[in-house]
Amino acid sequence: MRMVDIIAKKRDGHELTKEEISFFVQGYADNKIPDYQASAFTMAVLFRGMTKKETGYLTDAMMHSGETVDLSVLGSVVVDKHSTGGVGDKTSLVVGPLVASCGAKVAKMSGRGLGHTGGTLDKMESIPGMRIFLTQEEFINQLRNVGLAIIGQTAEIDPADKKLYALRDVTATVESIPLIASSIMSKKLASGSNAILLDVKFGSGAFMKTFDDAKTLAKAMVEIGDELHRDTRAILTDMDQPLGFAVGNSLEVKEAIDTLNGHGPKDFIELCIQAGSIMLEQAGIVKTLEEGRKKIEGQIANGEGLKKLAEFVAAQGGDASYITDPSKFPLAAHQVEIKANKAGYIRRIDSLSIGISAMKLGAGRETMEEAIDMAAGVVLRKKVGDRVEVGDVLAVAHTNKENVEDVYKDIHDAFEFQDEYLEVPNIVHAYIH
Amino acid sequence: MRMVDIIAKKRDGHELTKEEISFFVQGYADNKIPDYQASAFTMAVLFRGMTKKETGYLTDAMMHSGETVDLSVLGSVVVDKHSTGGVGDKTSLVVGPLVASCGAKVAKMSGRGLGHTGGTLDKMESIPGMRIFLTQEEFINQLRNVGLAIIGQTAEIDPADKKLYALRDVTATVESIPLIASSIMSKKLASGSNAILLDVKFGSGAFMKTFDDAKTLAKAMVEIGDELHRDTRAILTDMDQPLGFAVGNSLEVKEAIDTLNGHGPKDFIELCIQAGSIMLEQAGIVKTLEEGRKKIEGQIANGEGLKKLAEFVAAQGGDASYITDPSKFPLAAHQVEIKANKAGYIRRIDSLSIGISAMKLGAGRETMEEAIDMAAGVVLRKKVGDRVEVGDVLAVAHTNKENVEDVYKDIHDAFEFQDEYLEVPNIVHAYIH
Repeated sequence: MRMVDIIAKKRDGHELTKEEISFFVQGYADNKIPDYQASAFTMAVLFRGMTKKETGYLTDAMMHSGETVDLSVLGSVVVDKHSTGGVGDKTSLVVGPLVASCGAKVAKMSGRGLGHTGGTLDKMESIPGMRIFLTQEEFINQLRNVGLAIIGQTAEIDPADKKLYALRDVTATVESIPLIASSIMSKKLASGSNAILLDVKFGSGAFMKTFDDAKTLAKAMVEIGDELHRDTRAILTDMDQPLGFAVGNSLEVKEAIDTLNGHGPKDFIELCIQAGSIMLEQAGIVKTLEEGRKKIEGQIANGEGLKKLAEFVAAQGGDASYITDPSKFPLAAHQVEIKANKAGYIRRIDSLSIGISAMKLGAGRETMEEAIDMAAGVVLRKKVGDRVEVGDVLAVAHTNKENVEDVYKDIHDAFEFQDEYLEVPNIVHAYIH
Repeated sequence: MRMVDIIAKKRDGHELTKEEISFFVQGYADNKIPDYQASAFTMAVLFRGMTKKETGYLTDAMMHSGETVDLSVLGSVVVDKHSTGGVGDKTSLVVGPLVASCGAKVAKMSGRGLGHTGGTLDKMESIPGMRIFLTQEEFINQLRNVGLAIIGQTAEIDPADKKLYALRDVTATVESIPLIASSIMSKKLASGSNAILLDVKFGSGAFMKTFDDAKTLAKAMVEIGDELHRDTRAILTDMDQPLGFAVGNSLEVKEAIDTLNGHGPKDFIELCIQAGSIMLEQAGIVKTLEEGRKKIEGQIANGEGLKKLAEFVAAQGGDASYITDPSKFPLAAHQVEIKANKAGYIRRIDSLSIGISAMKLGAGRETMEEAIDMAAGVVLRKKVGDRVEVGDVLAVAHTNKENVEDVYKDIHDAFEFQDEYLEVPNIVHAYIH
């Protein structure tokens, strides 16, 4: 088998076999196939697409390019929730404890934030002592004892994807649905969960800008799950404004705690309830989503969700007193109120702009080498649909930096207004299963 | 400027600017742009194509990636003839002397043969002493004094094309008309000629398998010439049988000598006359192709073409006595007659198969490192349209190798028969200018 023939076959629009796709993935992971052939191949895939079968083969081959975690020893369904990345997305820190508190096992391998999107691992590290790398044995034991573990993905998981993703990034071949779908799914599958809920975001702050693109991606991932026999479902959620109020690491952890205390932002609570209901159904804890909703609402009301968060934090070495007393999280030196210079109803809050602003205030990194400021970020005071008068506070910028007036202006300008009252749509636009 | 953005722009179907294309070509030639970006880019070009302007920019940038030869000191038109590569194509060795003998300047930078196609340089080297590398000064002096020089392309000419061609070969991005056209034209333009006649071959032995593909390529190259203000014309010629009778280095040189002596194969003479007429018109020696044809025919009849060949060989250090006495060329140890095992009219002679057979007999190389046997090859005895009876000699295999019976069988099987008499079309199917 020669890679050049496989490239030509894809270029000419023919369906590749399982053996051809494995030859590429394994050869590339083993450095036997050079980058220049891999990039020509991915560009051909970008133009020609991949069939359901091909995408399944690709995912399977990538998943098996490195270590895979075997969670079958737990003897029960293990559910994973994955978001395609948004601004202010602290969902895992709320849904994870809520679902686990109902008796389900929730396992998640997560990533760090980059650019305008935050990462769950970074948020977790704002709690002193929190360990994000566990051995496989610790991971399994924690799932057995606590029911919830969220850890970083090790280098041994899916090395083919790591290599391929880095290559796609510099060769303009990121925007290919089968490549995006197999990249996400191969990592999820390698990390051992047998049920997966995907939160596919769309809008300015998301990787997918439109509902239709997000739906195409979600369907491709659900199809991969079908091909590889894992219960995979997806919700399509709105990222045309940041999720909840808080954007920034410890600010988001505090909002997660508030939410588990019953004081969460409306859009965020709704997302957590809907995602949690589906996960409970996947875990076999409830029979219907309606039943799931009641159960999740109950675990917020009775405080069991918050208790599980504290238990999870302690299990991973974190100082759980921060969960019971969030005032322990240090505040940034400056809290600057951003005030509206016009009146109207908020039509949209540009998530991308808020995400970048938070990053510039210190909350994120432009390159993987940068350190981040856990206390920095943006806390919205107004959301889409709210009525605003001139002088009202739109958001509060938290930062330890000086001379960032241009960022304050960007935050202000991220709010778009209209004269008429508007109905705010439900955050979950579709459910694919 | 970032290469990844240029790739994305081409991927999305937008027209690139001169600056963007230069950035790529120069950066790639200078090893600043990695192979993996270049291959993703060429794959995007393969799918999206290039506009006339883009192809012109690409050619211009490649041409200027290395040394360019300045022939303006000669103060007259210098004509180049380039063939896209065929089997038995010794045209330059006949047309070059004929056109030069009429007073035109003919300059050609040529390549070596690879695979089933022979190279003019290899054919020239079957004449003892023949030098294929001249200094720029020697090249210009020879053009001034003899009117004809055919030399090898140095590494300093068009390095971007060399690098890109090698990459395209292993990334399944060879088959792109703008890339093929710019690759050929950039080398031609860098070698200094201001009038170019392209012989674009089509059929089994040619790079372009169909007339339509060959026409598209020919038009693209003529358009590049227009963009860059060089008188560029093209003829489309049939490669559904080898050109003339002889395939193999010294065998072809002998056929070239025969042809200049007035005893050439019908198809080959016709090609030489038509190509020569156009070149004479390009050089301003004649006003019409009809006048050109008479002049070329005259130079064969009066022996001036042959005289010029001998003069050219001597000028480049070759032993011109081989031209006046071709029996000096050594013969291969074996001359094996290939006889027909069926009767009929020859419909087609698979050029690819004959080319590969000649290579296997010793006349060519599969990789650039191999040595070649100057005496080896195939001499056809029958051509398309000929009537054949069982036992007639179809061809004679010349070789110094033993145990090559399978090659003899391949030569036999390259001949395809039909029962009905057929009209043989003119070798030149179209003229684009």
